Amino acid sequence: MRNETVDPYLLTPGPITTSLTTKQAMLHDWGSWDADFNAMTGELCRRLLALANAEDSHVCVPVQGSGSFAVEATLGTLVPRDGKVLVLMNGAYGQRIGKSLSYMGRGYVAIDKGDYAPPSPEEVAEALAADSAISHVALVFCETSSGILNPVAEIAEVVKAAGRSLIIDAMSAFGALPVDAGELEFDALISAANKCIEGVPGFGYALIRRPILEGAEGNAHSLCLDLYDQWRYMERTGQWRFTPPTHVVAAFLQALREHEAEGGVAGRLARYTRNRDRTVAGLRDLGFRTLLEDRWFSPVITTFLSPTHANFDFRSFYDRLKAKGYIIYPGKLTQAESFRIGHIGQLHDVQIDGLLAAVTETLDELQVDLHL
Amino acid sequence: MRNETVDPYLLTPGPITTSLTTKQAMLHDWGSWDADFNAMTGELCRRLLALANAEDSHVCVPVQGSGSFAVEATLGTLVPRDGKVLVLMNGAYGQRIGKSLSYMGRGYVAIDKGDYAPPSPEEVAEALAADSAISHVALVFCETSSGILNPVAEIAEVVKAAGRSLIIDAMSAFGALPVDAGELEFDALISAANKCIEGVPGFGYALIRRPILEGAEGNAHSLCLDLYDQWRYMERTGQWRFTPPTHVVAAFLQALREHEAEGGVAGRLARYTRNRDRTVAGLRDLGFRTLLEDRWFSPVITTFLSPTHANFDFRSFYDRLKAKGYIIYPGKLTQAESFRIGHIGQLHDVQIDGLLAAVTETLDELQVDLHL
Repeated sequence: MRNETVDPYLLTPGPITTSLTTKQAMLHDWGSWDADFNAMTGELCRRLLALANAEDSHVCVPVQGSGSFAVEATLGTLVPRDGKVLVLMNGAYGQRIGKSLSYMGRGYVAIDKGDYAPPSPEEVAEALAADSAISHVALVFCETSSGILNPVAEIAEVVKAAGRSLIIDAMSAFGALPVDAGELEFDALISAANKCIEGVPGFGYALIRRPILEGAEGNAHSLCLDLYDQWRYMERTGQWRFTPPTHVVAAFLQALREHEAEGGVAGRLARYTRNRDRTVAGLRDLGFRTLLEDRWFSPVITTFLSPTHANFDFRSFYDRLKAKGYIIYPGKLTQAESFRIGHIGQLHDVQIDGLLAAVTETLDELQVDLHL
Repeated sequence: MRNETVDPYLLTPGPITTSLTTKQAMLHDWGSWDADFNAMTGELCRRLLALANAEDSHVCVPVQGSGSFAVEATLGTLVPRDGKVLVLMNGAYGQRIGKSLSYMGRGYVAIDKGDYAPPSPEEVAEALAADSAISHVALVFCETSSGILNPVAEIAEVVKAAGRSLIIDAMSAFGALPVDAGELEFDALISAANKCIEGVPGFGYALIRRPILEGAEGNAHSLCLDLYDQWRYMERTGQWRFTPPTHVVAAFLQALREHEAEGGVAGRLARYTRNRDRTVAGLRDLGFRTLLEDRWFSPVITTFLSPTHANFDFRSFYDRLKAKGYIIYPGKLTQAESFRIGHIGQLHDVQIDGLLAAVTETLDELQVDLHL
């Protein structure tokens, strides 16, 4: 059995490196219909709503599966069969929203900015003005394909002004980027257990404006992904409709408590931002270049262009870094060779120092000097 | 934090009490795209296929979520939009199959036997002969609503003779009831992590006949629940399409190894059967009655009729047993008051002795003497 002290650190957008105490919360078994477990689900939902200042306006609906399950479930539950979605795409997760809608037979149009350029509020406003059939707008808060932080507040203003419903995929943002339902007008905001709250993977959740969900009966394309039915059942019984990932829920609750102890969203944003700034500065010193200009950076993950140096090979680079205890993330761009380094999870100064030393050493081993 | 030595035992059909070593396998973090984790997924699928002697005929497709997600995913992937399913119902899980099909717009007819009576091979044969539009038959192996073990082998013969496709929901059976793909003709067999293999909840899986899955492209009603797409991606990359519940997968692999160490299906069947026989004998000695005749018993869970004694109240009974360290399971019948006691999970003679002592003591506390 691997010893947790020698597990490689995960420099990725999730699953991430979690605290030992979060993992230890899984050393128990719970009855999924028992009052003890129902209380855990209740606390989890209350804490998530409070994080978004949404206790009075929204409800929290968790759903089994990965984050993409929660996104598909939210779309299927909230977009009626004759609805039409404007999907803002600048990477893999925006594209996945379009693919989900195609599967479930919901109409959509896309503003597709390619690999990373952000959608502008002006073009969103134009698209909404031009097509009154558009009922919903779907947007990815932090698009981890490139690491870009999209202009969510500005786009939310435009969607509100046009009287449409906004669905935000905040997968890798919620818990580290501030979200205040009193200021940001959204009907649904989606995330998952294994992101900035730093739990382990196994479920996702949506914060949904209560009257919107109340009106969503009968929309869903799938029994398991029907968040209306999930919510009604949970309201009535305190239980998940179908077997929840009990251990993952327990870990997430522990992670939420540790999130609070670190100072909540502000505390986490500060640490992730510091991780990013130190990583970017360190890699730039070594001669690496980032894909994006600094103003588009997120504190979640940063894309670096793969060096064109003849000796640089991503597979060797990855394997050698992993052997030194650091797992980085492959790129996901269609136009340029790249790799990504995540800043979230249990990563502190000592891990960033270690990463930078490992990169330096690996470049030496590969005989890659990016300053030449 | 609760100490695992004092966690109540779960006398339920899952989530069940798992071994400490299975839970300890979750004390690590994995990159879900990394080779180490891919190797775990590969071993898991190989072991599951071997358990059913299905390595040459079927493929294993895991899917995130609870067991019901795996059932819905299998139905949605294998039943084409113009397909029609004969659903054999004798409890909540058969009914849920019908509900899933309604959501996804697939036609079905049901043979509904009510709370627990088993479907007979003869009536299945008649239904198939009478309606040539029926393409698939869906059957629950062990219906945990009542605890009945349905006559799967006999029905499989009839379905095969009629040239239809059989989908078996083997949720709480697989791993403890023998399944040999060389003898039992099925196109899909479905189970989940937290049942007789004794993992923790978080994903399900289907063993699907290879040419059947190869022909299933484009059927699915849902991106996340498309097992064709999940399988193709996994074949190509070794990875799950979307983030897997990494810790749950690790626990399941450990559970599979412990399953093998206990003597595989035969070893587990022997222990569960002994648990059941001792539980039923003990409760009968105290004056309880079972819902079913002995010949319909499963080694998974048994339904007991709630005594009509004036002092017997299920809520008090449940709470007092829980306080003594044993969590039993509420009934799910529509016609009769009942409760259920599960036999699966890390339950051995000492736990059954403890359960029987706790029941005896609780009846005394409630001043219920069922022999009067």
